[in-house]
Amino acid sequence: MYQVRTDLALEAREKFEEDNVEIKGVRLEEEQAASDIHISSVIIETENGAKSMGKPKGNYVTLEAPGMIEEDDGYHREVSVQLSKALKRLLPQKKDFTTLVVGLGNREVTPDSLGPRVVDNLCVTRHIIREFGKYVIGDSCHKSVSGIVPGVMAQTGMESMEIVRGISKETSPDVIIAVDALAARSTRRLNRTIQITDTGINPGSGVGNHRHALNSESIGVPVIAIGIPTVVDAATIVIDTMNTLLGALSQAEQLQRIGSSYEKLDMMEKYELVRELLAPQLNTLYVTPKDIDEAVKRLSFTVSEGINLALQKKEECGEDA
Amino acid sequence: MYQVRTDLALEAREKFEEDNVEIKGVRLEEEQAASDIHISSVIIETENGAKSMGKPKGNYVTLEAPGMIEEDDGYHREVSVQLSKALKRLLPQKKDFTTLVVGLGNREVTPDSLGPRVVDNLCVTRHIIREFGKYVIGDSCHKSVSGIVPGVMAQTGMESMEIVRGISKETSPDVIIAVDALAARSTRRLNRTIQITDTGINPGSGVGNHRHALNSESIGVPVIAIGIPTVVDAATIVIDTMNTLLGALSQAEQLQRIGSSYEKLDMMEKYELVRELLAPQLNTLYVTPKDIDEAVKRLSFTVSEGINLALQKKEECGEDA
Amino acid sequence: MYQVRTDLALEAREKFEEDNVEIKGVRLEEEQAASDIHISSVIIETENGAKSMGKPKGNYVTLEAPGMIEEDDGYHREVSVQLSKALKRLLPQKKDFTTLVVGLGNREVTPDSLGPRVVDNLCVTRHIIREFGKYVIGDSCHKSVSGIVPGVMAQTGMESMEIVRGISKETSPDVIIAVDALAARSTRRLNRTIQITDTGINPGSGVGNHRHALNSESIGVPVIAIGIPTVVDAATIVIDTMNTLLGALSQAEQLQRIGSSYEKLDMMEKYELVRELLAPQLNTLYVTPKDIDEAVKRLSFTVSEGINLALQKKEECGEDA
Amino acid sequence: MYQVRTDLALEAREKFEEDNVEIKGVRLEEEQAASDIHISSVIIETENGAKSMGKPKGNYVTLEAPGMIEEDDGYHREVSVQLSKALKRLLPQKKDFTTLVVGLGNREVTPDSLGPRVVDNLCVTRHIIREFGKYVIGDSCHKSVSGIVPGVMAQTGMESMEIVRGISKETSPDVIIAVDALAARSTRRLNRTIQITDTGINPGSGVGNHRHALNSESIGVPVIAIGIPTVVDAATIVIDTMNTLLGALSQAEQLQRIGSSYEKLDMMEKYELVRELLAPQLNTLYVTPKDIDEAVKRLSFTVSEGINLALQKKEECGEDA
Repeated sequence: MYQVRTDLALEAREKFEEDNVEIKGVRLEEEQAASDIHISSVIIETENGAKSMGKPKGNYVTLEAPGMIEEDDGYHREVSVQLSKALKRLLPQKKDFTTLVVGLGNREVTPDSLGPRVVDNLCVTRHIIREFGKYVIGDSCHKSVSGIVPGVMAQTGMESMEIVRGISKETSPDVIIAVDALAARSTRRLNRTIQITDTGINPGSGVGNHRHALNSESIGVPVIAIGIPTVVDAATIVIDTMNTLLGALSQAEQLQRIGSSYEKLDMMEKYELVRELLAPQLNTLYVTPKDIDEAVKRLSFTVSEGINLALQKKEECGEDA
Repeated sequence: MYQVRTDLALEAREKFEEDNVEIKGVRLEEEQAASDIHISSVIIETENGAKSMGKPKGNYVTLEAPGMIEEDDGYHREVSVQLSKALKRLLPQKKDFTTLVVGLGNREVTPDSLGPRVVDNLCVTRHIIREFGKYVIGDSCHKSVSGIVPGVMAQTGMESMEIVRGISKETSPDVIIAVDALAARSTRRLNRTIQITDTGINPGSGVGNHRHALNSESIGVPVIAIGIPTVVDAATIVIDTMNTLLGALSQAEQLQRIGSSYEKLDMMEKYELVRELLAPQLNTLYVTPKDIDEAVKRLSFTVSEGINLALQKKEECGEDA
Repeated sequence: MYQVRTDLALEAREKFEEDNVEIKGVRLEEEQAASDIHISSVIIETENGAKSMGKPKGNYVTLEAPGMIEEDDGYHREVSVQLSKALKRLLPQKKDFTTLVVGLGNREVTPDSLGPRVVDNLCVTRHIIREFGKYVIGDSCHKSVSGIVPGVMAQTGMESMEIVRGISKETSPDVIIAVDALAARSTRRLNRTIQITDTGINPGSGVGNHRHALNSESIGVPVIAIGIPTVVDAATIVIDTMNTLLGALSQAEQLQRIGSSYEKLDMMEKYELVRELLAPQLNTLYVTPKDIDEAVKRLSFTVSEGINLALQKKEECGEDA
Repeated sequence: MYQVRTDLALEAREKFEEDNVEIKGVRLEEEQAASDIHISSVIIETENGAKSMGKPKGNYVTLEAPGMIEEDDGYHREVSVQLSKALKRLLPQKKDFTTLVVGLGNREVTPDSLGPRVVDNLCVTRHIIREFGKYVIGDSCHKSVSGIVPGVMAQTGMESMEIVRGISKETSPDVIIAVDALAARSTRRLNRTIQITDTGINPGSGVGNHRHALNSESIGVPVIAIGIPTVVDAATIVIDTMNTLLGALSQAEQLQRIGSSYEKLDMMEKYELVRELLAPQLNTLYVTPKDIDEAVKRLSFTVSEGINLALQKKEECGEDA
């Protein structure tokens, strides 16, 4: 069956809602975290649920924060705080652990540069703690954090997975946080949504379309993935428009001649139609907002602050003691 | 009337061809410059022609070079040579003149960074010639070239036109060459086409949508514009798909139910349909190829070599003596 | 007479102090602005003073803030506040005026990239105020600010002065603030000192050694210059060491054989010695701290915040009403 | 004994020459490769020789190419060819092998960005050969090449050695080529010299002063290092000047009063003097040419072309068959 590409579990689930289909083994929890920040968790509990959703078993937490597209320091700070809370629920539940943060994507392509930029902004401590002990930083709550930007295969000749696995075996972090720019299904989510999942990065995800998984099976260490959709596949634009068409057709008097025909198509026929519409060159294109450079700068700072808060700051220290 | 946005005169003209409409005051010339490089000139000769085309009177030369999307040094060299020839026909027809090259666009947004990168690669000579005379460079054929990257309004608070006009008045070049990334109507043209025109940059053109003209009226000096389409407006993707739909519908048995209805719509109704389809958020999006970073690097080098060849190289010297 | 290069008026004056020379027409004022931030003003009042100092008549305010070499947000914020106060004393003393901020230097060379980075961080408002009026920003205290990064002559073929004069004539700002990386005489000042002066940028100053003045005479508008020393000329390293030698020689028993000879040299002979020492290639070198990339990022943010505070923020609004 | 820092074996050996000291176990070979390119090999054959030189046993080939500071494509091409020849003598002597190229240094600090930029320009093939076999590239002479830019410890929290060892274990290259910017002792060598050695990268070397070795012992794979001096330690400037002083003093009539005293100092006393002169802050400074940005761009291209020629190009293929 034709599958519109989305890296967001929330969108994968919504698709079924639209069709009024119940999915066994998939649970949804909702929470209003702060005014204008909404948190939902999709929990895929069974292999059956995983199959239906096209995503591995695990937790998918989504922060919907529409205000992130604006330049508002206070709001972004609040998002960082909520992100750090969501992150801490998925991080190891012990007082001390070591983390390797991986910035996936291509630094040279604006919408794919989220991961590298997050690592640029990160508070990296491993080398200091190893040389001087953790007390030199000022308090005992700092955790050892290292960071790597593996680059993309066209530049390195290697899979990100190979690079991360090699470094992980050599430096033995307790957990990996992988940050990546995602593709969304709906333009409404662009730069407005953060997904945090304990299932890692899976084949086909990310703006750069990873070919190998980056998860606890492939790396040997738990991998938490943080992603923000910064592009929409060109194909989804067309499908969005076809959906708009459905609505328009039933109303606009003048167009009912078409509408009634389209309505009569069943689901399968609609997919056939869409397939037909998708010119082959669409697959090598992506769609992104015009202010993507400012957006990615802001978002990378918000995400790295969230990670820093989850791992470093004093005020949060000792809460799980 | 609804107008699909294109910065390419060639595409503007093609639209009429599709509709079998003759346009008075617009002439088309074609030429096969080299194997796999095709040159066409659209000459808009009258105000009426300008009105029909939605573009000012003047010459629009288009190099169609599909091989530019590949990494092939020999081919790109040939494109530079053809570009320099086309450029020389539009440049002042005298032995010596001074040129200011303007790199329009936003260095931070990959598909909009063509202009700034061309200026980076440019052979700039004005300061040397002013200090030491032109004989110091080794021969008398070098022309005085200066370059500026004015930046975009969100960074400078000023129109590019204001910056260029100020610098032009201060330094008095004989001609300005403005380089800019364009929006095309068809994804087939992305990174494959160079447009050279003596009409300058006009409102609404360029990836960044200039608000003021950069031409001989606004600046007081002839402005030659070189543009390469690096993005397609998201809206045009939808329209491309609708066109594909037209073809598909007449063939696919299963879909004829819709096709026949759509066919019955007249031109105006089709535009109405498209308008309806265009969700408002599409206007803030653009579509660009996935390898845009490599593409823009290559193309900026090819264009700056074309300019360098037109203005500096010995072997071309004296030909108009 | 041999002159060790310094862009800092404070250092130029210190040289005389060392030699116990009084300079007529030059006044010095000191102030402890905050713990660990020290402000001194050199006021050159007469042409004679200007001649002695090798700098034009005017006000030179120096913020000495040794903590700027550390990453301490609170301290840097305090420096921004002090900078904005010093700036406001030199800015036009009226409620509303327009400002053009010029980021001098070469973005590609780390220690010379201070100016361009300050403009990157700047709160630019001119285009918004021109389009929507100033009330759209939220209050009436915002001033019109534009910004330009003119680039360096090797890239543009033009003097920064020509570019700025052209843009200034075209857009008519009331005042120009030019930001530049400076050369200091002493390594003790690197990245620790901010100089603000109403005399603009003068020939020979800046890391890039400007050849033309950028001041009210050359531009036709008052020019306030903000500079931070990020390099020391290689020659000054040698002279610093010779000064250390003087002290060392008088103490180290073993070395008194030399010391006594050197001491006997008069001022003129010492300069002769230093001249002799300066190998010609030293002139094409500069000396800079190893952490210059982090330092320039931090400092550019601190300076742009200082400018933003002086021109934009509400809490400072109305004080001169 | 006080040691002036140099990463160049040639300079380490010259020091002894100046002092007319024979060094057992160190052999020197010279060759004029092309007009204006001079090649010398220092071969350290015994542990004793290694001790005297302060460098590990092995081959150190130095290309002295003064013309590299100019922009001359033909000359740089010739340097690339000579580099590829020198490289091929140290690379595995078999028809096919896999190579990992490591770009050491900090991309953000101009004189330290040589290594990262070389990897940017590299012809990377491993992923293509793994997916499609080597025949897809067009001939059987292409070798598998991968590349990595590990970043610096302040950004990653990890030693470059740890990152490279991890990736090397994971991807099993037959040989590693590590490219790094070096510190030279003499300003005469800056950007004019390439050192190729089969001893890898050793502690204390490079602009960034690596703390751990990157060689066959630490990584488990032969490591060939390519280095170009782009900075001089600030301390060596002072010592260079003291050497100039020696000459000047013996000639300048006026200064003989000092000269005669200094001459009487023995070697040990001279070092004492220099030590005294070296203010502590000098250790955190470096000296670099003013045109370092253009120089590093050019050199990184020349080096990557040398590596590409050694590993990829057809015309060189089969010569060791």
